[in-house]
This record gives sequence, C-alpha cells and structure tokens, in this order.
Amino acid sequence: MNKTLEKYYSLLEEMKHLNSISALLSLDQETNMPPLAIEGRSKQMGYVEKLIHSKITAPEYINTINSLYDQYDDLSEIDKRSVLLSKREMDRSTKLSSQFVEEFAEIKSKAQNAWFDAKQKEDYGIFKPLLQKTFEYTSRYADLIDNSKKIYDVLLDDYEEGMTVDQLNNIFNPLRDELTQILNSIPERSSKNVFKSQKFDKDITRKLIKEMTAKIGYDYNKGALGEVHHPFETRIGDNDVRINVKYQEDELSYTLTGAIHEEGHGIYEQNVNPEYFKTSFGEVSSLALHESQSRLLENMIGRSKPFWKYFIKVLQKYYPEMNKFNYEDAYSDLNLVKRSFIRTESDEVTYNLHIILRFEIEQAILNKEVKIDEIPEVWNSKMQKMLGVTPKLISEGCLQDVHWSMGAIGYFPTYSLGNLTAGQWFNKFTIDHPDYEKQIESGDFSGYFNWFKTNVWNYGSLYTCNQLLKKITGEELNPKYFIKYIKEKYVK
Amino acid sequence: MNKTLEKYYSLLEEMKHLNSISALLSLDQETNMPPLAIEGRSKQMGYVEKLIHSKITAPEYINTINSLYDQYDDLSEIDKRSVLLSKREMDRSTKLSSQFVEEFAEIKSKAQNAWFDAKQKEDYGIFKPLLQKTFEYTSRYADLIDNSKKIYDVLLDDYEEGMTVDQLNNIFNPLRDELTQILNSIPERSSKNVFKSQKFDKDITRKLIKEMTAKIGYDYNKGALGEVHHPFETRIGDNDVRINVKYQEDELSYTLTGAIHEEGHGIYEQNVNPEYFKTSFGEVSSLALHESQSRLLENMIGRSKPFWKYFIKVLQKYYPEMNKFNYEDAYSDLNLVKRSFIRTESDEVTYNLHIILRFEIEQAILNKEVKIDEIPEVWNSKMQKMLGVTPKLISEGCLQDVHWSMGAIGYFPTYSLGNLTAGQWFNKFTIDHPDYEKQIESGDFSGYFNWFKTNVWNYGSLYTCNQLLKKITGEELNPKYFIKYIKEKYVK
Repeated sequence: MNKTLEKYYSLLEEMKHLNSISALLSLDQETNMPPLAIEGRSKQMGYVEKLIHSKITAPEYINTINSLYDQYDDLSEIDKRSVLLSKREMDRSTKLSSQFVEEFAEIKSKAQNAWFDAKQKEDYGIFKPLLQKTFEYTSRYADLIDNSKKIYDVLLDDYEEGMTVDQLNNIFNPLRDELTQILNSIPERSSKNVFKSQKFDKDITRKLIKEMTAKIGYDYNKGALGEVHHPFETRIGDNDVRINVKYQEDELSYTLTGAIHEEGHGIYEQNVNPEYFKTSFGEVSSLALHESQSRLLENMIGRSKPFWKYFIKVLQKYYPEMNKFNYEDAYSDLNLVKRSFIRTESDEVTYNLHIILRFEIEQAILNKEVKIDEIPEVWNSKMQKMLGVTPKLISEGCLQDVHWSMGAIGYFPTYSLGNLTAGQWFNKFTIDHPDYEKQIESGDFSGYFNWFKTNVWNYGSLYTCNQLLKKITGEELNPKYFIKYIKEKYVK
Repeated sequence: MNKTLEKYYSLLEEMKHLNSISALLSLDQETNMPPLAIEGRSKQMGYVEKLIHSKITAPEYINTINSLYDQYDDLSEIDKRSVLLSKREMDRSTKLSSQFVEEFAEIKSKAQNAWFDAKQKEDYGIFKPLLQKTFEYTSRYADLIDNSKKIYDVLLDDYEEGMTVDQLNNIFNPLRDELTQILNSIPERSSKNVFKSQKFDKDITRKLIKEMTAKIGYDYNKGALGEVHHPFETRIGDNDVRINVKYQEDELSYTLTGAIHEEGHGIYEQNVNPEYFKTSFGEVSSLALHESQSRLLENMIGRSKPFWKYFIKVLQKYYPEMNKFNYEDAYSDLNLVKRSFIRTESDEVTYNLHIILRFEIEQAILNKEVKIDEIPEVWNSKMQKMLGVTPKLISEGCLQDVHWSMGAIGYFPTYSLGNLTAGQWFNKFTIDHPDYEKQIESGDFSGYFNWFKTNVWNYGSLYTCNQLLKKITGEELNPKYFIKYIKEKYVK
C-alpha cells in the first residue's frame, strides 16, 4: 500500500472510532441513561461532534484526500470508492462555516422541543416560527453546498447519492396513480384483533423476539437487543450492531413487525464484507438500500403466508392463549389495507402515498409555492385527495413526524425508494429461489439469508443503490416489480 | 475568574468528557456489548486513552497548570485543590514515556488473560512469568515517578493520597492482633440458609433491589441499575451514576449485599456538591473515603438488626415463601463469622486479615524478601497463621484476586482503610443520631442520608480522607472505632 493510502486509512480509523463513540452515546441515551443526565450528555455529544468536525477539516485530512483524489485512476476499486465517499463528506464539511453549523444545530435542537410541545398541545403556532427557520436554514445549507443545483436535488443527494427531483417525479407520478387505483379496488374489511387479544408481557415477548430474530439469521454474538421508545438499529462498531425495539403490550403486531424491520437493517450491517467496510465511516451509505432490506424482511417475508405458517407455532409456544387463532388469522390481520392518517402505522399499499404527499409539500415550500402558514391546510387537502380521509387533529396531520424538526428535509423519499427497491430484489430473489416459500414454511431461512448476503449485504457501501441493482438484477430501479408484488398480494 | 483559570477549567471540561466516554465504553462492554465486539472495543478504548494522554501531556495543558501552580497562594480553596490534583495527574503522566506506558499496558493485558487461565486450570506456572514482569514494571513505574521514595510509598500514594507504609504498619499491626484475638473468641455456628432456601428469580430480585435502593436514597433520575458479572459502580457524567449488580439466583444474600455495597458508592457520587465536583476529573479521588461509604452502607446499615426489622417485610412482599423466616434469622445468617479462604466472601471480622496478608506479601516481593516462585507457599503459611486454614486449591489461595494481574499493587490496603474509616464515621454518626436505629427500623433513612450528605458526600475530592475525618470527627484515622464496633457486634 502506498504511504498516502496508509495515512488515509489510519485517519479513517480515527473517524470510525469517533463515529462509534457518537453512536454509543446516542444508543445509551435512548436505552439506559437516567433522565437528568441529558444536559451532560448533550455536552458530551457536542464535544465529539466538534472533534469529528476538527478532524475532517484539518489540513492533514484534506491534503491526504486531495492527494489521493489526484491519483484516483491508479487506485483499486475499493480505494476509489472510499476516497470518493470521504471526499463527499469532507467537501460538505468544509463548505459550511462553524458558525453556520452551530446556529443550525441550535435551531434544530429548539425545533425538536417545539415540535414535541406543539404536537402534545395540538397547537401548530408553537412550532411554526421554528419550522420557518428550519426551512430557511435548509435552503441556505443547500446553497452553500452547491448553488448551481436545485435546492431539493442537493438535499436528496445527501440522503441518496445521485438522486434528483426529476428522477423521483418519473418514479413517483405513475406510482401514485397506480396505488390510488389499487387502493380503490380493495374493499375494506375488519380486524380479528389477533394481536390485541390479550396483554403481551414484555419479558415473554423479549424471549420470543430473540428466538425469532436469531432464527432468521441475526447473530447475537455480534449484536444485542435493546428497549427504546422508538425502534431503531445502530452500528456501534465492528461486530457490534444493535437492534432496539419498543414493547407495546396491548398490540403485539407493533412490537413484532418493528423488531423484524430493525432486524432487516441489523442483519444487513452484520453481513457487510469487512474488506468492503473500508469504504465508509459507519453504516452502509445508501438509505434506499438500507430501507429496502428492512422493508423486505418486515413486509415481503415477515407479513407473508409462509412466514406465518411457521411462525404461528412459535408464537403459540410463548403465548398458549393464541392457540385459538390460526396462521390465516394472523396473516389477515397483518395485511389489512386502511385509509388512515399515520404513516408509520400504514399498510404496504398506502405507505408510499403518505411519502409522496410529503415529497410534494417539501418541494412546494422550498419553491415558495406554499407558505409555512399554509402547511396544515395543504396537508389536509392533499390527504383527502390521495387517501380520501382528512385528519381531525393536527397531531395526526402535518405534526405527526419528527423529521422536519430535525432538519431532515428530503429524507422521506428514501423510504419509498426502499420499498420499490425491495420489490425489485424480491422479484429477483423469487426467480432464483422458486422454492423459497416451502423453505420458510419449514422455518428454514438459509435460502433468504444466503441470497441476500451474497448479492446485497456483502457489498456494503461499494455501490450506489442503482449500481447494485444493475449489477444484480440487470436494470436500475424499476417500480414495476413493487407494483406487481402489491397487485399479486392485494388484488384478487 | 482570571483568564488562566478559565482556560484551565475549559481544558478540564474536555478531560471530563473523555473520561465520561471512557467510562461508558467500559460500562457498555460489561453490560450490553456482544461478545465478538471485544477487539473493536479494545481499539476504541485505546484510542480514547491516547487522546487523554495527548491532551494531558500537551504544552497548552502543562503550561496552564504550571502557571496556576505559580500563583497557588492566590487561588480559592476549591481552585487550589483542583490545580493540585490535576498537577499530580499531569506529573505522573509526563514522567512516563509513551513506550513504557504501551509496554506495561501490553503486559497487564496478557497477565489478565494468563491469570484467568491459570485460575481455571489451577496452574500457577501459567501466570508466574507474567506476574514476575508485572512486579518488575511496577517497581520501574515507582522509580520513574519518584525514586527518592520507597517503592511501596509511591504505589500507595497513587491509590490513597499521602498514605505511607509506616502509617499503614502503625495501623495494621495492632489491628491484626486485635482481630485475631476477637476471631479466637467467637464460636463457630451454622447457617439457617435463609438466603439459599429457594431460587430467587432475577426479574423479581431486580424490582426488589430497585425498591430497596430507592428507599435508602439512591436517585433513579440520576442513576440506573445494570446487570454485570462482577458488581461495580461507575460515574458516567453529571447526574449520571450507574450501579451494576450480579444476580445470583441461588444465593440472594450475595445479590443484595452486593447491591447495597454499590449503592454506597453510587449515593456518594450522586450527592457531591456540583461546585466541589470541579476539583476532579471524575469520581471522588480518595479510595478509602469511597470504600468507607460502600462498606458502611453494606455492613453497618445493611447487615444491622434495625435494617432487617424493616426490610424483612419488603423481602417477604416479593418472596412470600420467606414468611417462614423472621428478621433475626436473616440477621444471623448475614453475620456469620467464618475462617474462610476467599476475601470477597469473608465477614467483617476476618476481612481485614485477608487484606493484611496481601499487604505483607506485596511488600515482601517488592523488597525482594520473597520470590515470585515462593508466593503460593508464603500465602498458604500466612493464611494458616492468621486465619487457621490452608487453601487446598491455588484458585482459593494466591490466584483468587484479579488485582495483581491488572498491575494494581498497593491497592488492597485501601479496602481496609475503607473499613476503618467507616467505623470512625459510624461512631460519629451514632453520637449525632442516637435515635438512628428507631428511624431505620421504620424505614426512614433520612437521618442517615442527611448526615452523610452534609458531612461526607458533599465535599467530593476537596479533602483527603484524613483531612475530612479531622474536620468532621475531630481526629485523623483512628482504628479504635472500627474495633469498638466489631467488639460490640460480635463479642458477647
């Protein structure tokens, strides 16, 4: 290895350590940290962020990366990718003054509190001025990063490398029409309340989830299960990927599907080839790829008939009262299609409509076609048009998500990209594994595990989402596979 | 505040953040970290240690402290103490080359593995060469720090500021004779197996411990209860002090006394006056003071009759089968005096004899009166002489403790100093609170809590152990109070 590369990887190693520390501080905050420690913890996190920023903007780091970038053509495929991703990160950091970073951080911190307060009190006015500022600073951010591009294109590129508004419109416009049509063709039906039929004790459910996630392939020698208020997965370091669930004792489906979703993220991170892991600071960089793995496991596997044919017996082992239900009852309840207000509780058919609504509103605000004042009204009228329902409470309307208060504008589309990508992987997987249903019915997840390990997880951040789709399925993202999956499952 | 002081406290703040991070990495390693993450974690910890060392030996830090040290007389009491403790730490760090630190760290890491292996296999030979090196490097360490002092005095000063071999001999020699005499006067009696009478479910015991520790005064808004293999307490940051217990389902007394012991440490750290907390990087610096609070709560309160008059009912609430025992049964079992091999399981009467044995052997090795080869034999013959028993297994003899393999030579005496100090606090407390037994019997711990908060915990690291004893009890450490307590409790 040449000296500059050696230097580069040793600097990258430092970044990874600091990222690990930052991830652990966050994880602990959500799991074990006592309530009054929050002020001290904020300072510790701020200190680590400052350290990372100072490392990433130090001449030593900048010069090393620029020097490697000059000899880009002579680098190996992995080194190229690593240097490219580091340069992206560095370029972003060096374009922002530390004053701007600090001001924006303060606004976001205040906005999150205001959002929480506004949602509790059903009072948009509490959040409005800070939402205004968040959108303003987001626009300024995009201008600072690259004022030759559309604002929304800069934001999208942050979350999904290379993605643009034009590409998204080409994907989302027909998708919206197709889904609306499908939704109109599905009659409403009622729930059997399988997963609400009793109290589901946390300690029992924990054991159930451990058995389930291990059976699917999550490795507890490289992972652990935590308890949090909002489920999430996090990579703490090498061989250290944690999944965290919320136990809802009155609604087991929430707990279980949340756990399977996070396992989808976790199993991905656990199975990145260590050699390819050199390409990034931490988690796999494509959010669409990441979400494709969680949504595929949660929905296409975890809400499937074969899965429940096997899994109903495991469930009944832990909860003998569930003997009164069969796998079809469970399957039926887990796949109810409903016109509802809340994105995170929505089904596979309506989910993407919730996202497209947000995508349209974000653009309209950034393009100054909609004022911050008008968001609640615009939200409700779009909701009525797309889903045929109008939220009565603002907490069930435009205040339902935390994202905007965190400054995560342009993030929502990656959820839909994840769903669509999942459809494309699933199509290819079922072609390669026509017998997968028989396997899963018998509790054998090896076909699933090995295919995804070989074709997706293995590569880490080596490719963008489209590059990997092209390599493995032969074409870039094509929504038709997701539509086909939805039609086959929901349109009889 | 003058500019240099301001600079100093901002540098100290950085150290505190790094210490917090280091503590959290360790805590997580012992609680939630998956097994295969250990290699990555070691690297993360090493990185943080390197950061701390580089900060503490940077000219900016050194100059700031030296400049404050030059104006020492003009500083406030708190600033004086803070600068003094920082200078101690800095002087130690700058006297050691990074090569020496690295070599010694490697030896200790290997020695811990070898110790564990040797203990498992009952084979002293596996540990011997690394124990030899550990003692060699410890001697070199003491020489590097201050070659004008006795080796053992340098080591003692690390763990208990200002303590010397001569002082310890003056304390330990009469203590050994007194305790041996007391031990000889106590007839052996048998256990009623109160705490081994059933299986004690971990989840139930956890709730019991939460109620118990909160009742005594541990604040769960500033703390949390974790599960580990060896109980310990750790300060993660401001308002963030965690206690960790081991659940032994076949022996509840182990679990409970361990929890109360760690609470003693935790309640101390939770109640340091934030103003005085400026005096140190992290935990209260005197190990004797720290241990005095854990041993006092564990033994003088937690193994007392009034405590069990109240607490037996709480225990019976969680474990109804315990109704067959009364508080006297519990008290009796918790205070059995036995001639046994294992320090950590020994009673209040014999505990200090275990310590004195180690103190004598450590000195003999450092003075080259005993060779590493001869340790097992010397151990056993001293054990026979002092306690009248000879271990058959080496794992119950000189291989029982982890300390030497960690390079913690000169550490053991602080345990006994803790016991003796506890005796002196307890004496003063009972004079000030003649009604304390009535209070505790009724589950009222406010008398205990407030006295210790005001007179001990409050001061943090502002004073050395002897200074604080003098200030509050009117005299420096005097073992007679501990002896008096033991005689009153055990000699009828």
